[in-house]
Amino acid sequence: MSQKKYVYSFAPGSVDGNRNMRDTLGGKGANLAEMAGIGIPVPPGFTVSTDVCNLFLKAENQIPPEVEEEILGHLDRLGDGAEQRLGDEENPLLVSVRSGAKFSMPGMMDTILNLGLNDQTVEGLAQKSGNGRFALDCYRRLIQMFGDVVLEISKKDFENILKGIKHQNNIENDFELSEKNLEDVIAGYKNLVKDRTGIDFPQDVKEQLFMAISAVFKSWGNPRAITYRRLNHIPHDLGTAVNVQMMVFGNFGENSATGVGFTRNPATGEKELYGEFLYNAQGEDVVAGIRTPSPIEDLKKNMSEAYDELEEITTRLEKHYQDIQDFEFTIQERKLYMLQTRSGKRTGWAAVRIAVDMVNEGLINKEKALFLVEPESLDQLLHPVFDGAEKAKHEILARGLAASPGAATGQVVFTADEAVSWKEAGKRVVLVREETSPDDIHGMSASQGILTATGGMTSHAAIVGRQMGKPSVVGCAAIMPNEEDRYFQVGDQKVNEGDWISIDGSSGEVLHGEIPTKPSEILQVIRGELAPEESVTFKYFDKLLSWADEVRKLRVRANADTPKDARIAFAFGAEGIGLARTEHMFFERERLPFIKQMIMAETEDERRENLKHILPFQKTDFYELFKELKGYPVTIRTLDPPLHEFLPKKEELMVELVELKASGSPDNERIQELEKVLERVKALSEFNPMLGHRGCRLGITFPEIIEMQAQAIFEAACELASEGGKVFPEIMVPLIGSVEELADQKEIIVRIAEETIKKYNIELEYTVGTMIEIPRAAITADEVAKEADFFSFGTNDLTQTTFGVSRDDGAGFINHYLTHGFWKDDPFASVDVSGVGELMKWAVEKGRQTKPELKVGICGVHGGDPRSIFFCHKIGLDYVSCSAYQIPIAHLAAAQVTLSEDTTS
Amino acid sequence: MSQKKYVYSFAPGSVDGNRNMRDTLGGKGANLAEMAGIGIPVPPGFTVSTDVCNLFLKAENQIPPEVEEEILGHLDRLGDGAEQRLGDEENPLLVSVRSGAKFSMPGMMDTILNLGLNDQTVEGLAQKSGNGRFALDCYRRLIQMFGDVVLEISKKDFENILKGIKHQNNIENDFELSEKNLEDVIAGYKNLVKDRTGIDFPQDVKEQLFMAISAVFKSWGNPRAITYRRLNHIPHDLGTAVNVQMMVFGNFGENSATGVGFTRNPATGEKELYGEFLYNAQGEDVVAGIRTPSPIEDLKKNMSEAYDELEEITTRLEKHYQDIQDFEFTIQERKLYMLQTRSGKRTGWAAVRIAVDMVNEGLINKEKALFLVEPESLDQLLHPVFDGAEKAKHEILARGLAASPGAATGQVVFTADEAVSWKEAGKRVVLVREETSPDDIHGMSASQGILTATGGMTSHAAIVGRQMGKPSVVGCAAIMPNEEDRYFQVGDQKVNEGDWISIDGSSGEVLHGEIPTKPSEILQVIRGELAPEESVTFKYFDKLLSWADEVRKLRVRANADTPKDARIAFAFGAEGIGLARTEHMFFERERLPFIKQMIMAETEDERRENLKHILPFQKTDFYELFKELKGYPVTIRTLDPPLHEFLPKKEELMVELVELKASGSPDNERIQELEKVLERVKALSEFNPMLGHRGCRLGITFPEIIEMQAQAIFEAACELASEGGKVFPEIMVPLIGSVEELADQKEIIVRIAEETIKKYNIELEYTVGTMIEIPRAAITADEVAKEADFFSFGTNDLTQTTFGVSRDDGAGFINHYLTHGFWKDDPFASVDVSGVGELMKWAVEKGRQTKPELKVGICGVHGGDPRSIFFCHKIGLDYVSCSAYQIPIAHLAAAQVTLSEDTTS
Repeated sequence: MSQKKYVYSFAPGSVDGNRNMRDTLGGKGANLAEMAGIGIPVPPGFTVSTDVCNLFLKAENQIPPEVEEEILGHLDRLGDGAEQRLGDEENPLLVSVRSGAKFSMPGMMDTILNLGLNDQTVEGLAQKSGNGRFALDCYRRLIQMFGDVVLEISKKDFENILKGIKHQNNIENDFELSEKNLEDVIAGYKNLVKDRTGIDFPQDVKEQLFMAISAVFKSWGNPRAITYRRLNHIPHDLGTAVNVQMMVFGNFGENSATGVGFTRNPATGEKELYGEFLYNAQGEDVVAGIRTPSPIEDLKKNMSEAYDELEEITTRLEKHYQDIQDFEFTIQERKLYMLQTRSGKRTGWAAVRIAVDMVNEGLINKEKALFLVEPESLDQLLHPVFDGAEKAKHEILARGLAASPGAATGQVVFTADEAVSWKEAGKRVVLVREETSPDDIHGMSASQGILTATGGMTSHAAIVGRQMGKPSVVGCAAIMPNEEDRYFQVGDQKVNEGDWISIDGSSGEVLHGEIPTKPSEILQVIRGELAPEESVTFKYFDKLLSWADEVRKLRVRANADTPKDARIAFAFGAEGIGLARTEHMFFERERLPFIKQMIMAETEDERRENLKHILPFQKTDFYELFKELKGYPVTIRTLDPPLHEFLPKKEELMVELVELKASGSPDNERIQELEKVLERVKALSEFNPMLGHRGCRLGITFPEIIEMQAQAIFEAACELASEGGKVFPEIMVPLIGSVEELADQKEIIVRIAEETIKKYNIELEYTVGTMIEIPRAAITADEVAKEADFFSFGTNDLTQTTFGVSRDDGAGFINHYLTHGFWKDDPFASVDVSGVGELMKWAVEKGRQTKPELKVGICGVHGGDPRSIFFCHKIGLDYVSCSAYQIPIAHLAAAQVTLSEDTTS
Repeated sequence: MSQKKYVYSFAPGSVDGNRNMRDTLGGKGANLAEMAGIGIPVPPGFTVSTDVCNLFLKAENQIPPEVEEEILGHLDRLGDGAEQRLGDEENPLLVSVRSGAKFSMPGMMDTILNLGLNDQTVEGLAQKSGNGRFALDCYRRLIQMFGDVVLEISKKDFENILKGIKHQNNIENDFELSEKNLEDVIAGYKNLVKDRTGIDFPQDVKEQLFMAISAVFKSWGNPRAITYRRLNHIPHDLGTAVNVQMMVFGNFGENSATGVGFTRNPATGEKELYGEFLYNAQGEDVVAGIRTPSPIEDLKKNMSEAYDELEEITTRLEKHYQDIQDFEFTIQERKLYMLQTRSGKRTGWAAVRIAVDMVNEGLINKEKALFLVEPESLDQLLHPVFDGAEKAKHEILARGLAASPGAATGQVVFTADEAVSWKEAGKRVVLVREETSPDDIHGMSASQGILTATGGMTSHAAIVGRQMGKPSVVGCAAIMPNEEDRYFQVGDQKVNEGDWISIDGSSGEVLHGEIPTKPSEILQVIRGELAPEESVTFKYFDKLLSWADEVRKLRVRANADTPKDARIAFAFGAEGIGLARTEHMFFERERLPFIKQMIMAETEDERRENLKHILPFQKTDFYELFKELKGYPVTIRTLDPPLHEFLPKKEELMVELVELKASGSPDNERIQELEKVLERVKALSEFNPMLGHRGCRLGITFPEIIEMQAQAIFEAACELASEGGKVFPEIMVPLIGSVEELADQKEIIVRIAEETIKKYNIELEYTVGTMIEIPRAAITADEVAKEADFFSFGTNDLTQTTFGVSRDDGAGFINHYLTHGFWKDDPFASVDVSGVGELMKWAVEKGRQTKPELKVGICGVHGGDPRSIFFCHKIGLDYVSCSAYQIPIAHLAAAQVTLSEDTTS
């Protein structure tokens, strides 16, 4: 009695397991037991537990004798109902052997059907079933699967034998094979086995069984499975279970069938039994694509009873599991058997619809509904999409990283300026660049989508693409563009400026030609182009998010630089702006010359003179932005990028100069001018600009710049306030490494603020805080908090500095790190909890030790990532700030983490 | 009785203070009290405490009435002995007023002498002294000093009046002025005062006194003093004291004198009364340079008693203070008075000699001696120096940062290759570069000294210069060289290749022409060029360091890449090599082509093929290095720099290509070749190479490189071991950010090590550890320690990443940060305790939680910085590793911190 249990039955009347035992039984085994337990017709069987897998591997691939005994015991009982015995020549028991780990895993051995057949039992089966052809078909399938999976003989070799015999006999389809043909196939298969392994196909059926079970366990240790586990940080000692189940036969004849399905439409969420099946077929036939399966409702015609039962059972399963189910079934002579059930994968839209519908149907409550949608998947609802059928007609040119979802189609342009002018001429364009930089913003904004050859998921193009809601494919090395000569080449195909391409930001595909897209309904509503009540999608989406709003505790703000961004953010439910960058404004056409002159200035006076010209522009920018806020707070970051970003590139200048000088009649004036610019560019150029003269370092060395910015902000705020508007500016200083830096900048900001408020003679609340984006700022947060009204984590830079990795330079190793498991997740997408997260926790604790009321938020890209949002909630942040289009994601993620805390506490 | 005391007497018989009361009395006041207390003849006086300064400033520049009263009381008693009273027309009391804060501070008001004189008392003084000229001289000095210091009238204006009168009367020296002349001077001075301030020079002597005291207090708040305190992190509320002291007169006639001196020679340490004096002079006259003072021994001639007394007193003072004293004295009519004493500043050599001598003389013990030498100052003993008189003959061309001390003189060359070939031709050269990089190493090694236009104290040139012991001046922007046309220009002076210049790495000066230098004796001994017993300097040096070795607990290793470096390091007492870089070996001429081919390789096979050629070179490198070790451990760092450092620069290639193409008959083969290199350079180029594909990231993506290195190391070690040599290699993986990276590299290293050891069939101990130079490695040190046998802090990169600052890009702001107090100290020179230091502490604690026996060291430049060494000792490091030339510094610093702990615990 005290003996450890290794084998668990799921036969009717003796079910040892349930769905909560995934650790022991694996996912498949646990669900089989659960189904058997609630009376669903499941062919009886048993599960050899994951513990055995570990024992097996430890014992150098030996199944322990006591387990072997336990298995044989279960096997005996298995045939009892049908009076079958494994290897019985008259009434043989046939079983399937399937692996089933806790998490499904590619590379693991999958399935062996019809185990128990040999040269004798195949006769018994033929007689007992009265169907010789069926018995032979089962036998050849067994040898094929066993040969492939257990003996590691290539599938192709078996297929070639089958093909050869079909060819000899002028047969096109498998079901046309006669018994004689099948006998020939079996003979051929046996020869192949003997030939390749030196042994005969095992006639001892117990040997078959234990070889199959051993093969499953061994496959746990195959390289592909190991790599997969390493990448997904699945512990290697979980082990896999093995399910041994009595065979039922979908290939018993025309009254038999096998199929797969979903309880609802996984693409649209519609409530309908959705799936497909084949008559007289077994196992993989349905998905193998050799025969075209029929839609599941066709079952009604010939097998209406089985269909009704399937409908009844799957409805029960959905109710039982409180989620859409993905199931497998087999019908043997009109009798229905369920072989598997599990949660179904679904699109974002389907997830929302199913969650809301199931609440309306009374199947689940709102809290459960919030967990049925993966926050990231909401993104799919916002972006234009290609029509799938149309897309299939077009050739895939290359693949890159799917950086910003959605579909874009347009004519290729290679510069930002061209993007703008083509757009102004009424054309749709896709901007193709080696990489993008802040001075491409206007061009990105004018494009349908963005395609770059370099950069990762957090490159400039990717971030801006997502923030703008522009479909973007980045890091597509194959298309390295020749921007000068205006083409890119893939293989022997040349794509010129003006050629049509399409990019799918959800898959990373780059396609030839123009593919029609359809805009997202939700976005149309958000933009005010469609009335909310006219969009079913929006109503569902809005309903789900209203439930999220009822529970979430984290506030959600948006990163937005322009009034347009702000409008969209507030339509999505932003509760303020968490990051308004002031430098994007610098790049706009009419002010860039002043910026450039300001940078070229040799004296402070000269700089101040140029800043005077910039001031009214900045003031207007802020005024327009503040008008959108309606009293919500806005965090404005002072100038951040290094000044050389506003000047031409050194190499370009050098090459242009050499060319100019080498030309027949050099333009000396132009040469002089260029040389002057080059001199300044050289003086400003840096080996590591990311760690250079930027952020508050600019404001400290050129206080006149931050003075101008403060003046613009506070004049705009005061003006709006004096007109009765509500505005609450929070000035944020970037790249602080020590409290001294913040104190210096704060002194300037407060001085200008007080002067301005006094001048306007009004009341205006404002705060001054800092980004925490340098490790030292986090480490000395107790000091920094003395001068800060708030912290905002700039996790982009904080991740770069904490890892000592430039995200822009990752090509050489970041991809390697991600694919080889050095990094579990991309730390530039999801907060690295044990490194960066530790610094964040430290900063929050230390900061609030100094100032308990310290407001703390995050404005890096991580602010829109659900796992990061969970973490931010847990370490006590007040808000996250993300791109406008990520606000729904953040709302849902914030709700989920709040709920999961409620249930665990 | 319970009233707070504000004024402290140092009159004979009523001394209220002592040398430990610097907080209250300031440094000067505390030492005056101390001297008075031990019976040294000090003119009586009193000190108004630093508390009064704070009260004064709080009360808006008012001396509190109760303090005023207390001062007047002391003043009354002061004159008692001589029956003098301030303002008494017959026997006037005259006093000096001097500031004296805890720390001496530029910008503070200094001294007013002869206070108490007015139109009446000057007559009394004349009569009483019987010396009208003397009285008038005192009066004109008072007006001049008071006018300058209290009334803020420019000194120059007073001097012009004096000059004018001397000119009118054809007088050259002040002492030739007649009474009549002096009366004219006084009249002129008074007019100036009236003219500039609108008031008469105050005739009320108490008003004089309180104005003077107030001026001292006010000067505490002047901008220069505030800036100085901010920069030196001296609290603003310390305040300054004021010393009011009865005048004694060195200008009383030819029997009077005033002088300054040291108890030992501050340049050579020789035990001799060292100083100078002037007969019939007062105050600043001695150092003002108008008259040439006489050596102090000349006093013997005319005033042997005073001289003997001075000798006796200063000997007592030295014994009392247990340190060389810097003193001021005045002799009035053959009577000696001491006016000040304090510790004397001395050169490194003098410090060593004095410390050792004082122990031999029985004045101090060894522990005290170790504190008499500033560790940094030992550096001065190691570098060749210019002959001071010779140097003065040469013109200073420019000044840069004094990066590596010592003197160098040579002919200018602009490339590393030229440096080598000129040297081979028997010439001495100074290498002048815009900046240096690892491929300049051979040229740096061949040069007398290095001069660069860019870079800071921790630039490549500075670090390598110090490590090589090469005098270096860096960041000398004024000399921006035109490396192509081989000249640099300073103002209108052009310095061509081959011209002679001299650089002083101790002062940062760049001078025209050839200046003779003398090599350091100690270095000659270390290099084996001079027998130890033949060098007095070495004997002293060695003695002091032997005392340090008796007490220090930290072990000291050297950073050394070559056998030569190692030999020097061990001669200096290194206890192992803490950092041997493997990439410097890559740059050597015969292997660079293979390295380049390896990098250009497109496949792993091609790379492996080239690595095979490099292997024997690396193996020989290690074998030769190991031979020097004699059993000491050596920490070898695997390849660290990004691969593009080994290829030409992108811009250079681009410009060359444009030029080639534009030329009349383009060399197409060369163009193709260059284009191929350019392509690879572009592919490898990074925006932020510091955060890019380098360190272990190379070893992870190109495991064949680290395999080759491991093979070279272990074959060399095994070979030496099998020959009976002792070697203990510690392989160190750079730039680890996570334990996964270390585990990967360790797996390779251990595998190769075990294979090789097995092949040689010997026993060999080795360890594998990691640099901690990325914040994330420090934060996750508990994890990293699982795979590490040791940690070595790479504080250069750790500082860069923790601050988010590239030390190479600092030009724009680092200097500003240092001069404006944003950084107290240069974090690239001395460990930033509150930021980087916090991470180090964390890493040591976490690492040893996982592995209590974890060995921890440091190998960044900070390993040779005394304050950083103190810190390393305190957080429990096992060793520091520094350049060979810094080993003595590290030994002394390590001894000091051990001793200071012993006394405080």
